[in-house]
Amino acid sequence: MSVIDEPLRFDAGALAATRVPGKVTLVGAGPGDPDLLTVKAERALRRAQVVLYDALVGLEVLALVPEAARKLFVGKRCGHHALTQAAIIELMLRLARSGQPVLRLKGGDPFIFGRGGEEVQALAAEGIPFEVVPGISAAQGAAASLGIPLTHRDHASALVFATGHLRRGAQDADEAVPDLDWALLARPNQTTVIYMGTGALPRICAQLIAHGLAGDTPAATVERATRPDARLVKGTLLSLPALAQVHAVQAPALIVVGSVIGLQAELATTLRGLPQVAMV
Amino acid sequence: MSVIDEPLRFDAGALAATRVPGKVTLVGAGPGDPDLLTVKAERALRRAQVVLYDALVGLEVLALVPEAARKLFVGKRCGHHALTQAAIIELMLRLARSGQPVLRLKGGDPFIFGRGGEEVQALAAEGIPFEVVPGISAAQGAAASLGIPLTHRDHASALVFATGHLRRGAQDADEAVPDLDWALLARPNQTTVIYMGTGALPRICAQLIAHGLAGDTPAATVERATRPDARLVKGTLLSLPALAQVHAVQAPALIVVGSVIGLQAELATTLRGLPQVAMV
Repeated sequence: MSVIDEPLRFDAGALAATRVPGKVTLVGAGPGDPDLLTVKAERALRRAQVVLYDALVGLEVLALVPEAARKLFVGKRCGHHALTQAAIIELMLRLARSGQPVLRLKGGDPFIFGRGGEEVQALAAEGIPFEVVPGISAAQGAAASLGIPLTHRDHASALVFATGHLRRGAQDADEAVPDLDWALLARPNQTTVIYMGTGALPRICAQLIAHGLAGDTPAATVERATRPDARLVKGTLLSLPALAQVHAVQAPALIVVGSVIGLQAELATTLRGLPQVAMV
Repeated sequence: MSVIDEPLRFDAGALAATRVPGKVTLVGAGPGDPDLLTVKAERALRRAQVVLYDALVGLEVLALVPEAARKLFVGKRCGHHALTQAAIIELMLRLARSGQPVLRLKGGDPFIFGRGGEEVQALAAEGIPFEVVPGISAAQGAAASLGIPLTHRDHASALVFATGHLRRGAQDADEAVPDLDWALLARPNQTTVIYMGTGALPRICAQLIAHGLAGDTPAATVERATRPDARLVKGTLLSLPALAQVHAVQAPALIVVGSVIGLQAELATTLRGLPQVAMV
């Protein structure tokens, strides 16, 4: 679905009458489970009039928006963009300038790989008031629901989030290597979570080994974290690419690297609410 | 307040009659603002019977717990522990073994520097069922409320969380240097957030410069993030220690390092809900 050719139904009278732009609220939709929305985010959704939402936002979260509200899909997934980032920003500015309060709904947390920073810069530059409601990031949802502590005194004294998106212009995901700071990601005694890296998983694992991590470092992929059909595939840096292929791991998925993954089997023995299809 | 000498009011009959331990729910209390609890966390708090809570949990969050529930403070703050970690775990296990459902409430997210990993390991080892409800971490709350994107295409492609706690046994905070992976923290093109490092701020800034960051790298402290009396002190790695002293920055506070801090002034022009005492 695309809104790119859809005429915007502005109320021309209202537009002329007001010089006060509508406030834009960037809301983190969290990892998927609507119970993991913040109280503030849930309230904002239930009062929303116009919602611009991304591909990573779950249907149950969207269902909280009133029937009468206008919901515009502006998402992108694996190179198939409904709108470019510039067009999303332009649409958001136009709606706000017309005086309407706008809810900009993003998966996870708007300020962690959500490009929320660029969007609020555009709002500030235009004098448009905004607010940001943080969200549970996918890594936090995956960790809590599957039993993977992100930090631990004996395993990980630091936590690193990075994104595996290919550098701008790289079109062929089979050839390109993500432009990551490998020396940062390949340090021991930390947990590394790579967002949006599934398509480059074999190259990511190879680079982490090339930069010094042991091949038997625990590593995993998590698909649809916190959803009933979540799936965890666990292995090592050496084995994970083949396991992910065998089990047909699909983007979007998180890649988690570090010895905390080794705790998951032990914790899963009494962890309640583990998704049925979680696989180890 | 301490519960260390308080007799535990177990119901001996109930204890003998049941072999089914109570479930322990580790709940992330978020950064302070009760509206930033997850829907799931808020529901768990409203149904709680026994709550073990830490120092970093806000009063408004605690106020959601029913009057009739038992609230046990087991927190620690700057070396003054109500209970040791081992004693907290032992108390949690005893309560759960007695058949009571226990809500273990931790500031932020239980699996990000909350020692939640150690606590759920103890539960799993004893066969006690548990669940983990993630929370908005202080860094996320600070970022959203003050206008500091944690990642940004032009500034930070990775986000690093570390803890500035002194190594075990180090008692004299004026002498000791936190045992951090400086090479990890001092990389460019990332945002670094250090939890619980306020007491070591001058040494942290000096180490980051010694390991390669420019002295004019933007750096800030955030106290009481998301609370009405939140305070932001902004400077550079060179200037922040003196600024923090002048403004009497108190633990607990976050230290945030990276060029995204340079966006805050621009974003603050139209950001709504900025705390009154936020200082730049």
